[in-house]
Amino acid sequence: MTVRLADLGKTVLETEYAVRGPIVARAAELEKQGREVIYCNIGNPQSLGQKALTWNRQILALCEYPELMERAPGAFPADVVEAAKAILAGTKHGMGAYSESRGVRSIREAVAEFILERDHIGVDPDAIFLTDGASKGVQTILRLLISGPQDGIMVPIPQYPLYSASITLFEGRMVPYFLDEANGWKLSRPMLEASLVQAKAGGTRVKAICVINPGNPTGAVLDEANIAMIIGFAKAHGLSILADEVYQENIYLPGDAFVSFAKVLHQVEAKDVSLFSFHSCSKGFLGECGVRGGYFEYRNVPDDVAAQILKLQSVNLCANLPGQTAAYAMVRPPKPGMPSYPQYAAEKGAILDTLRQRAILLAEGLNRIEGITCNVIAGAMYAFPSITLPPGRTDFDYALALLEQTGICVVPGSGFGQAEGTAHFRTTILPPTEKIQQVVKDLAEFHRNYR
Amino acid sequence: MTVRLADLGKTVLETEYAVRGPIVARAAELEKQGREVIYCNIGNPQSLGQKALTWNRQILALCEYPELMERAPGAFPADVVEAAKAILAGTKHGMGAYSESRGVRSIREAVAEFILERDHIGVDPDAIFLTDGASKGVQTILRLLISGPQDGIMVPIPQYPLYSASITLFEGRMVPYFLDEANGWKLSRPMLEASLVQAKAGGTRVKAICVINPGNPTGAVLDEANIAMIIGFAKAHGLSILADEVYQENIYLPGDAFVSFAKVLHQVEAKDVSLFSFHSCSKGFLGECGVRGGYFEYRNVPDDVAAQILKLQSVNLCANLPGQTAAYAMVRPPKPGMPSYPQYAAEKGAILDTLRQRAILLAEGLNRIEGITCNVIAGAMYAFPSITLPPGRTDFDYALALLEQTGICVVPGSGFGQAEGTAHFRTTILPPTEKIQQVVKDLAEFHRNYR
Repeated sequence: MTVRLADLGKTVLETEYAVRGPIVARAAELEKQGREVIYCNIGNPQSLGQKALTWNRQILALCEYPELMERAPGAFPADVVEAAKAILAGTKHGMGAYSESRGVRSIREAVAEFILERDHIGVDPDAIFLTDGASKGVQTILRLLISGPQDGIMVPIPQYPLYSASITLFEGRMVPYFLDEANGWKLSRPMLEASLVQAKAGGTRVKAICVINPGNPTGAVLDEANIAMIIGFAKAHGLSILADEVYQENIYLPGDAFVSFAKVLHQVEAKDVSLFSFHSCSKGFLGECGVRGGYFEYRNVPDDVAAQILKLQSVNLCANLPGQTAAYAMVRPPKPGMPSYPQYAAEKGAILDTLRQRAILLAEGLNRIEGITCNVIAGAMYAFPSITLPPGRTDFDYALALLEQTGICVVPGSGFGQAEGTAHFRTTILPPTEKIQQVVKDLAEFHRNYR
Repeated sequence: MTVRLADLGKTVLETEYAVRGPIVARAAELEKQGREVIYCNIGNPQSLGQKALTWNRQILALCEYPELMERAPGAFPADVVEAAKAILAGTKHGMGAYSESRGVRSIREAVAEFILERDHIGVDPDAIFLTDGASKGVQTILRLLISGPQDGIMVPIPQYPLYSASITLFEGRMVPYFLDEANGWKLSRPMLEASLVQAKAGGTRVKAICVINPGNPTGAVLDEANIAMIIGFAKAHGLSILADEVYQENIYLPGDAFVSFAKVLHQVEAKDVSLFSFHSCSKGFLGECGVRGGYFEYRNVPDDVAAQILKLQSVNLCANLPGQTAAYAMVRPPKPGMPSYPQYAAEKGAILDTLRQRAILLAEGLNRIEGITCNVIAGAMYAFPSITLPPGRTDFDYALALLEQTGICVVPGSGFGQAEGTAHFRTTILPPTEKIQQVVKDLAEFHRNYR
C-alpha cells in the first residue's frame, strides 16, 4: 500500500500558498501551449528582465573559483578582488564547507556594520543569523515562538502568505489584523487592539505581531510614528515583533525614507520588547532571488532563548555559502572612489528609477479603470488594487478569467486576505515598462467586459 | 516583557542535534583560546583540506558571471563553457531568479538521465525535486508523512540526528530499530519486526522506515539482498521508505558496489511501496557542503499526494540556483575524450583514494587500542567505534575529556543512539592522513589513561 492522501495530516493539507497556487499552475499550462503569459504573480525581478548587479556577480564568480585571480587577472576590478579575498579569508575554506550555524562570522560583522551605519545603533554579530533568503529566517522564528495550538501570531491582512502557510505548518493560530486601506494601508492602534481582544476572547495566547514594511502586498511605507505606535502596542501586551524589512531599498516617493524597527526600538528604549528583523538579497535593487541569501537580527532576546535559536539553526547546518557571500556584497557595496563604484551606482540607479516609474505608471493606470481603486505604491514591488465584481463572482474567478483572456497572471486577493465584502488582486510592478503599459490596457478592457 | 524560555514549546526545547552540540561549542571556545582542535565531528570535507572539483567550480563561476565567456575566454575549457550554456539555457534567467518550485526542469532531466544510467530504470523528471542539500528534502518528506502525534517513523540506531531532530520538530514519534553491530551494522528482519511490534504495542501508527545507505554513522554498505529484505518488510506493513543515499560514491571495499533502493524496488516490482530517495552534492568526492545542493526522487506516490509535496516545496519557493547548478555538475561529469576529463578523473580519483586509505588507517588504528572495537569502514565518511568506559562515566564525559586533553573533537554515541549498556563515539575519516595518524596515536594514549 503506497502512501495515500487520507494518511496525510491536516497541517499539510490545510497549508496554502497562493503565490504559487492553481492560477500559476494554469499559467504554466497556457505557456506550454504557446500562449504568451505576463507573470505578475511573484516578486522575481530577474525573471522579468532585471539584470544582476555586476559587483555581486563578479564577487560570486571569484569566490566560487579563486584561481580566476591568476587565470583571468584583467577580468576583475581591484575592489572586487579585494572583497573576494576578504570573504574567502572569513570563510577559511572557500564556498565548499559548511560555515558555523549562524553563518560566517566576518560576514555577520559586515552586516552589523551595515546596520550600525544605517541606524547608528550597536549590533551584536552573534545576534545575526545568515539565512537562505528571509523566508527561512521567518520560519525559524515562527517555529521558535509557536509553542502549542493555542498560540497566536498577529499577521496583517492583507499579508504575504509565507506567514499564514508557516503558522499552519507549525500548528499555531493566525490572528489577523486589518491594514487600513482607506488610510494608505497604514496600521492603526484601534484595529490592532480590536484584533487582540477578539483573539483573546477565542482563547488564543497571542505571542507576536508580524509587520511587513515596506508592505507586501500593500506597497505602504511606515513612518517613525507608526512604528513607535506598533512597538508601544507590543510592549503593552508582551508581544514579540517580527519585522519583515526585505523591501527596505524599494522606496519610491520623494520625502519617504525607510525607518527600521531596530532604530525606533532603540529610540524609545523598549528593552522589554523582543524584536526579530529580516532582510534579504532577493528584493531591493539586487533582486537575487535565486541565490537564497538573507539574514535576521534579534534584540532583547534572553541568552537561553538565543541558545534555542542557535540549536534550531544547527539542524539546518548553515545557509548556503554563495547566499552568504551575496549578503556580504549587499551590505558592503563599493564606495565612491572605488573602481567598481561608477558601474554599481549606474546599475543600481537605473533599476530603482525604472521601478519608481513602473510604480507610478501602474497605480495611475489602475486608477483610471472604472471599478478598480489602487493606493499609491510607495514601496516594495506590488500593487493590491480593490476591484468591484459582478454578483456571485469571486476574486479567484476574476484572476482566472483575466489569465485565460489576456495572459496576465496575478494572484487573487483571497490568497493574501482581505476585509469581508471586498475583492482585490496582487500584481507586481516588475514587468518591463512597455509590458506594464500593456497590462494596464488589457486589464481595462478585460475589466470593462467582465462587469 | 521579552520572549522567555518558559514561553517556548516542548517541540523546540526537546529537539537535539548532537553533531553541533555542546562538545562542538566547547571546541570552538578552546580554539579561540589558541588550542589546536582536530574537528572530527562533522562530515565537512573541504573544512579539512579536501579540494573542490575544478569542473564544478568552473561551471559555477561561469554561470554566476556569464560575461567571463567574453572577458576571460582562455580561462575555461570548451566543455565547461558548453555545460554552463546548457544550464543557463535551462534556467532562462541565469542564477538570480527563483526557478519553478521543483527546480529547473532541464537540471531535473539531467538527474533523471543520471539515475537511468546508474540503475537502468526509467525516471519521471517531475518526480524529482532539487533541494538545498539532502536535509531539506528529508524534512519535506517527514513533514508530509507525520500526520499527528501518534505517527511513527522507523529510524536506525545509530542514526544521523537530522532524523530524530526533524521527527521531534514535526511532533511525531521516533521508532528506533537497531542495526546489528556484531554483523557489520547490517539490518536484520527480526530486529525490524521486533521494533514494529513494540511500536504498535505502544499505540504508534508506523508510517515509514528510514534507511541510510551507505551508513551514517556506521560506515556499512547494504547489498541487494539486504535492500530487498527491507522493501519486503515495508511492503508487508504498508510503510513508505526514505532512502538516504547521500554517500553513494563513498564505497571503499573492493567488490562492494552501491545499490540503490530505486533499482531493487524496480526489480522486485513492488509497485505498492512508496519510495523517497535522497542525494546530495555535499558528500561523495564533490564534498560541496557549502553550496547546499541535492535532490530527492519519489516512486509509487499517487498524484494527489505528489501535489501536496509540490505545495510544501512551493512555500520554500525553490532551492538555491548555485546548488541546483552544482547538482547538474554532479550528475553530468565530463566524459572520457572531453577536455576537462583528465583533470576531473585525477581529482576525483585522488580524493576517493585518500578517503579509502584513511578509512582503513582509522579502523585498523582504532582496533589496535585495547577497549575500542570498530567495524570495517566500508562506506560513507565515519567510524562509530564501541568503547568500554570506566563505571559511572558516560560517552559524553569521554568525548569532553578527549577534547580537553587532546583537542580531538568527536560526537558522543548517545547523539546518534546506541544499544543500552554500550558506548560509542562518531568520528569522521576526513582529517588529512597525517592527522588521522595523530588522532589514532593520541586516542590510544587518552583511552589508556581514561580507563
